[in-house]
Amino acid sequence: MKEFIQEKYKDIKESIYSVDYSSKYPDLINFGVGDPDLMTHEMIIKEAYDSQIAGHTHYENPQGYLGLREEISKAYKEDFDVKCDPSEILITMSGTEAMYIILEVILNPGEEVIVPSPYFSVYPDQIKMAEGVPVIYETKFEKEFNIEPREIEKLINEKTKAIIINTPNNPTGSVYSDETLKEVYEMAKKYNLIVICDDIYTIYSYESKFKPMISYDPEFKNVISISSMSKDYVMTGWRLGAIVAHKDLINAMTYVHENTVYAVPTLCQYAGAMGIANRKIICPPLYEEYKERMYLAYERLKKLNHVEVLRPKGTFYIFPKITVPDMTTDEVVREILEKAHVNLINGSAFGPAGEGFIRIAVTVNKDKINEAFDRIEKLDIFKK
Amino acid sequence: MKEFIQEKYKDIKESIYSVDYSSKYPDLINFGVGDPDLMTHEMIIKEAYDSQIAGHTHYENPQGYLGLREEISKAYKEDFDVKCDPSEILITMSGTEAMYIILEVILNPGEEVIVPSPYFSVYPDQIKMAEGVPVIYETKFEKEFNIEPREIEKLINEKTKAIIINTPNNPTGSVYSDETLKEVYEMAKKYNLIVICDDIYTIYSYESKFKPMISYDPEFKNVISISSMSKDYVMTGWRLGAIVAHKDLINAMTYVHENTVYAVPTLCQYAGAMGIANRKIICPPLYEEYKERMYLAYERLKKLNHVEVLRPKGTFYIFPKITVPDMTTDEVVREILEKAHVNLINGSAFGPAGEGFIRIAVTVNKDKINEAFDRIEKLDIFKK
Repeated sequence: MKEFIQEKYKDIKESIYSVDYSSKYPDLINFGVGDPDLMTHEMIIKEAYDSQIAGHTHYENPQGYLGLREEISKAYKEDFDVKCDPSEILITMSGTEAMYIILEVILNPGEEVIVPSPYFSVYPDQIKMAEGVPVIYETKFEKEFNIEPREIEKLINEKTKAIIINTPNNPTGSVYSDETLKEVYEMAKKYNLIVICDDIYTIYSYESKFKPMISYDPEFKNVISISSMSKDYVMTGWRLGAIVAHKDLINAMTYVHENTVYAVPTLCQYAGAMGIANRKIICPPLYEEYKERMYLAYERLKKLNHVEVLRPKGTFYIFPKITVPDMTTDEVVREILEKAHVNLINGSAFGPAGEGFIRIAVTVNKDKINEAFDRIEKLDIFKK
Repeated sequence: MKEFIQEKYKDIKESIYSVDYSSKYPDLINFGVGDPDLMTHEMIIKEAYDSQIAGHTHYENPQGYLGLREEISKAYKEDFDVKCDPSEILITMSGTEAMYIILEVILNPGEEVIVPSPYFSVYPDQIKMAEGVPVIYETKFEKEFNIEPREIEKLINEKTKAIIINTPNNPTGSVYSDETLKEVYEMAKKYNLIVICDDIYTIYSYESKFKPMISYDPEFKNVISISSMSKDYVMTGWRLGAIVAHKDLINAMTYVHENTVYAVPTLCQYAGAMGIANRKIICPPLYEEYKERMYLAYERLKKLNHVEVLRPKGTFYIFPKITVPDMTTDEVVREILEKAHVNLINGSAFGPAGEGFIRIAVTVNKDKINEAFDRIEKLDIFKK
């Protein structure tokens, strides 16, 4: 049957997230997938139910339920001082569909997208699906995985269409400074490029309040902002996100969205509107919890031999450098899995710049984090 | 900003469904969009809620919640005598995403897909998005809009990759015979083509029980079946469907699905599983209700001058022929809207073979159907 599959999809590899080790190791502690363990707020769940009982079981407007777009518009204004009209918002199946639609709408075959590495592993696949070419820009541990606009500038050529910016960053946990974002924006303006900002960890910025790049571009001429409720509201299973962009782009994106999923499920959208309206109740405890876990994991990592780690700035990912003599990162990851029953991801899954690192998602509670590190620090390779 | 949009999407037209006349005509009766008026069964709504309170607020397996795939597998066996393993099923954002993913996975640029016309208006757009070429095959009112395999065969060439079959059919309401489906399957086998069966109105077959084409192809070598809960369970707002296909194709499709929406919302999938498990309670009243409405609309249409109508066989759409002297179908549609305040769709929206017809979706209750026809039959153009 493979004969029927088009060239692009003939040789696809399995997802790094799809292996389940919990049956093999019943006491497994999973630092692997970036799915927060905390449950969606009951207020949101109840609103999904109420909306359905009230009869909203029908198709929604493909661009998105107006009530949700209005809440997002208000939140961008109040939280980020960004003025966007509901007509400049498209509701999507979380950040994943948002990124896919943007790439599909803007990329002519062969056009290039600059992606800082380490990157969320789906970006290059999505760029290739949209017939574009990912151009990888490597950030460095020594520079705290920050991006340097002048280095990015060297990669720009006549084929360059866009740059993807993800801050707070998955997988490194770094947070770019406001100055850096402003510089990247100025560069995009100079070369007439689009910056696609994957703004999906906005509440998890631990040293300064998050300020999205789109706030520098009030007419949305060069910047697109993706938001998502997956992480900021622990709603990964609800698949709820949004694109804020120029109306012309939103129209084309709505067309693609309409022809791929038609509309986001109505009950998710009502629930999302309730969540955003109550974000000052829902989000702060999540911020506090993940911040504490990040610092806990950081303190525990610092004590290990052959490990270097940066102070956490954002997200719920830590990305330590592993330099065990005579062992590859793959071997270290396997040793931790097999001997400590802790699952984490080899940094190379996030691009070449991730080689020699591991990603730890602190999506288990503090007791389990401590338990995991109690086990890990007993391994010979990490003993001081 | 249009400069940033890739060639394919520079000139997109507005959806035929997106115009809302209800503010202009407060007493509007809407026969336009195919969104059943009845509400999703409370059992399904409650299960969505219960699943979330139980903590299933997280990412689901991209291929789909196993519990739902098992229910679909059981239902295909019990209802259609089709044996499919859960590994041969991908859960999608309803039929729309299912069709898009299939086309995206199988079509190399320039490959052709045969589409019987009148067609669900999204098909050609989706084929073009996937870089394919729609080849339209026109069915005829005089032949009850049935397909003739020998006529289809004339359109097959070395570029042909697939044929889309939608029975019970939107917009014509026709239902192809088992013999016809078997012949099309044999033809697909002979030329090694894929038949994509959009099996989304399966309960709404009024003269015989629906038998999907995939039942003739136990190894799924040439047939793919799309199912959906949108119509059969009045769950349009939930965006829930599935693809049954060969495992090799399902793997490639799961990759595309994962990189576009990642997974279908978890709560929708739990709710869907509950719905399918209880289909013998949920579906028969829907069947009865829409059947009665179809025959009611049919009887009322028969009495109008300048209207010819076929006896309803399936779906909740009637597709009468309109031959008002000296008036285009567009003018007739506008006259009905402006004078009778009834919204319906010009058949030309469903392809050239729809020219001269209108589509009526009986998605309002019998009182409203009668009220609509009371108004329509008072128009001069329809008086006998």
